[in-house]
Amino acid sequence: MNNRPGEHLLTLKARRMGIDTHQELTIYLRADSHVCHSEGFSALSRVQVESDQQQIIATLHIVSSELLHKQEIGFSDSAWQRMGLTEGDHVWTSHPRPLESLSHIRAKVFGHKLNKEQITAIVQDIAAGLYADVHLAAFISACGDGKLDCEEIVDLTRAMVGVGSRLHWEQAMIVDKHCVGGLPGNRTTPIVVPIMAAAGLSMPKTSSRAITSPAGTADTMETLTNVRLDLEQIHEVVKNHGGCLAWGGSVRLSPTDDLLIRVERALEVDSEGQLIASVLSKKIAAGATHVLIDIPVGPTAKVRDQESADRLSALFFSVSETLGLNVRIMISDGSQPVGHGIGPALEAWDILAVLQNKKNAPEDLKNRAAEVAGALLEMCKKADEGKGFDQAIALIESGKAWERFQDICQAQGGLRQPPVAPYRYNMVCPKDGIVSNIDNRQLAQIAKLAGAPADLAAGIVIYAKLGDEVYQGETLLTIHAESPGELDYAVAYLKAHTQLITLS
Amino acid sequence: MNNRPGEHLLTLKARRMGIDTHQELTIYLRADSHVCHSEGFSALSRVQVESDQQQIIATLHIVSSELLHKQEIGFSDSAWQRMGLTEGDHVWTSHPRPLESLSHIRAKVFGHKLNKEQITAIVQDIAAGLYADVHLAAFISACGDGKLDCEEIVDLTRAMVGVGSRLHWEQAMIVDKHCVGGLPGNRTTPIVVPIMAAAGLSMPKTSSRAITSPAGTADTMETLTNVRLDLEQIHEVVKNHGGCLAWGGSVRLSPTDDLLIRVERALEVDSEGQLIASVLSKKIAAGATHVLIDIPVGPTAKVRDQESADRLSALFFSVSETLGLNVRIMISDGSQPVGHGIGPALEAWDILAVLQNKKNAPEDLKNRAAEVAGALLEMCKKADEGKGFDQAIALIESGKAWERFQDICQAQGGLRQPPVAPYRYNMVCPKDGIVSNIDNRQLAQIAKLAGAPADLAAGIVIYAKLGDEVYQGETLLTIHAESPGELDYAVAYLKAHTQLITLS
Repeated sequence: MNNRPGEHLLTLKARRMGIDTHQELTIYLRADSHVCHSEGFSALSRVQVESDQQQIIATLHIVSSELLHKQEIGFSDSAWQRMGLTEGDHVWTSHPRPLESLSHIRAKVFGHKLNKEQITAIVQDIAAGLYADVHLAAFISACGDGKLDCEEIVDLTRAMVGVGSRLHWEQAMIVDKHCVGGLPGNRTTPIVVPIMAAAGLSMPKTSSRAITSPAGTADTMETLTNVRLDLEQIHEVVKNHGGCLAWGGSVRLSPTDDLLIRVERALEVDSEGQLIASVLSKKIAAGATHVLIDIPVGPTAKVRDQESADRLSALFFSVSETLGLNVRIMISDGSQPVGHGIGPALEAWDILAVLQNKKNAPEDLKNRAAEVAGALLEMCKKADEGKGFDQAIALIESGKAWERFQDICQAQGGLRQPPVAPYRYNMVCPKDGIVSNIDNRQLAQIAKLAGAPADLAAGIVIYAKLGDEVYQGETLLTIHAESPGELDYAVAYLKAHTQLITLS
Repeated sequence: MNNRPGEHLLTLKARRMGIDTHQELTIYLRADSHVCHSEGFSALSRVQVESDQQQIIATLHIVSSELLHKQEIGFSDSAWQRMGLTEGDHVWTSHPRPLESLSHIRAKVFGHKLNKEQITAIVQDIAAGLYADVHLAAFISACGDGKLDCEEIVDLTRAMVGVGSRLHWEQAMIVDKHCVGGLPGNRTTPIVVPIMAAAGLSMPKTSSRAITSPAGTADTMETLTNVRLDLEQIHEVVKNHGGCLAWGGSVRLSPTDDLLIRVERALEVDSEGQLIASVLSKKIAAGATHVLIDIPVGPTAKVRDQESADRLSALFFSVSETLGLNVRIMISDGSQPVGHGIGPALEAWDILAVLQNKKNAPEDLKNRAAEVAGALLEMCKKADEGKGFDQAIALIESGKAWERFQDICQAQGGLRQPPVAPYRYNMVCPKDGIVSNIDNRQLAQIAKLAGAPADLAAGIVIYAKLGDEVYQGETLLTIHAESPGELDYAVAYLKAHTQLITLS
């Protein structure tokens, strides 16, 4: 805390505004307040705020109405939490010192290579919440499209690991997987983890919730068990049962990554270097030694052609090698949804069907999970080369994976039945034909309009697959919703978009 | 307006929040509102908002408290103004279509050259308010440090002119000037304009207000006359009196520039290409044919060395040539403040002293103004090469410039006396010595703490110049303030910063 002269003039009373600005820390001051006047703060100024305990840099929004008193300072939810305030606490504001690490970002904008110290300084400042979204955007743009070389990606990965929590294991081999750019319904993780556990390996899996999609692995798993585990619980469950299926948000394995991902999405700018650092930093923080990267390739997938997939694979390899991580890449088909269900509970039912060897279990989901698991078994010498897939299938069909899945869920807080939505709408096939195209983006949109992922039971069950012969009157898909209003809304969208499933 | 099915479900009542988020259009919705739920909007989502009349894309902040009802949508001041709403109006929200021009920014991030159509699309979308700050930040970073070539800068300049207002003149020669990166007190414009007018030239000058400095030319001129002129008034005043001194904010000569400048400042990233397009687009929109660019060079100035100044000059020349603009560059000393006053009214008093040939008139300000004016006179063949400076001095000393200045101010709404601040503090010289360094940044900070530019009379009068012999007990500078509280605050800062003026 600095003892700036005149500081006493600027004491303000803290007030929670009840406004969620996500991770962009935001404060609110009256335009006619003494502090705005004397400090020359204006809308969007960066302001340093300190209490007796804490200090942040936040973006200022100016209040021109009676929402605040002149002696008050309002806080967004994220700023309030980071400051750890109580209503009425006294705080002081000042101009923040220039962030030295911004000069490194400028250097990158100017095409210079960054060294380890510079990258570490940037990541530490991001983790400390000192960057506004515009600074993150500049960093992302400056690193876009191969502007980070292998050494910089390695340094970035290490720096991201350095600012987060970390898991340590006694086992020599810890496996993990990651899918680059999800496909609707491609929920292989909850099948792969119990296969690995059944094969005697350890897989401490943390997954994310949906951000723009109708379901994330954490959402799906939450319909089956508790996913909010702390580091100690993850350690315990994995030690006893060979794997876990936890939500990554409860443990801060790579806190800068969450901040960067949100702005990357807004920009729709993918930096290969940051993607690789993002994925590998979480794996290293989780203690992984052997990692399988699944890259679905398809016209509407994140990676659109083989050439891009090859370039990405090569970079993943060289960075992983330097980091001492054993990585294998699987290039897979990204042209259509996987399984039948799209939405948290509906995808959970698919997973249960595969693990329980039900007759209606989706073959494509089962095979994809077995491919991922098989590759991991081969990497860890639990299967001979070329035999991993069959061995993974055997672990599913013998019921061993299902046994392990139940154990893991029990250990996480109990296995439960996914919810079922009461409101349904069947889309009926209008004529005989062959399914020639499925629009993944529109499918995801309908599932979200029906309520997914917030309504866990909502979403779509799709029966048609590319190349299927279908007949007039047959049900192509069913929309599931928890309320009639949401069903109406999803159906209205469905009727307005006739290119959802194309027949030839 | 699209007739999206289900739209009626999402009608919301408009409410002005009384929150100023500057040009970042922001809306507020309750987390538990039907629209957040069904559309899957979350904090910082980009949302399209439409009324019967207007349509914008805004950034969403989520309200978790009783600030709003569930059926209401709150608007920031800028969003409210752009929508032209009345309290209680009905509006609808939806997901915006992806902005095609963002793909051009991605192309630039990936190092591709942009063509005219791509640059025009970006500028039009920025002008239409469709970009969030993070998009502007990505554009600025992608164009940083010479990543725009001469052709791209020309296209950018033309596109920026294309989306703004424009002045047209009958005269063959229209002169203008610009100073790259201001120095405290360097207020030559109000002296140059009447010199040009007295020489029979036309100079329709628009200037900006202070953003981070204690005064802008528009703030200073406002202490002397009305500066809020519309395009027609500018035309009239210049036609009759050869020049004007207006605030650029009342006329939208380059609306995208205002948006970009704010984010550039936050990033502290200067793109030479965008700087040139920014300056020249405003000159072209004002109808200028002959432009003098003043580049102060000094350790604390924007341009720090001769090499950078030379590179910038070369680019200015080649872009101007393609645009058919006659440009001359003046490299000047940027090592210390100009004149005595720092702050709107205090700088106005300096200007009056120069124009009225007062004994106490600051020589440095007079000479700088005459250098700029002289260069313009030479460019326009109103003076022989090398004779411009003397001719400009003669137009000041003969009182002709002062006559023209009075005419211009009368035509703009009347000449008035700048205000005088009642509260003063003298900083006394602690020992005999020679002034070896002056910290411009700290001087500006003290002037702002004293109340400038909002309090027009506030600021600093500095008597010491680099190299001056000074004696113990002599007054080095005087702080001026409109209230005792602000004076206290500025004095406290002054006392805490002993390196403000260094003696050797």
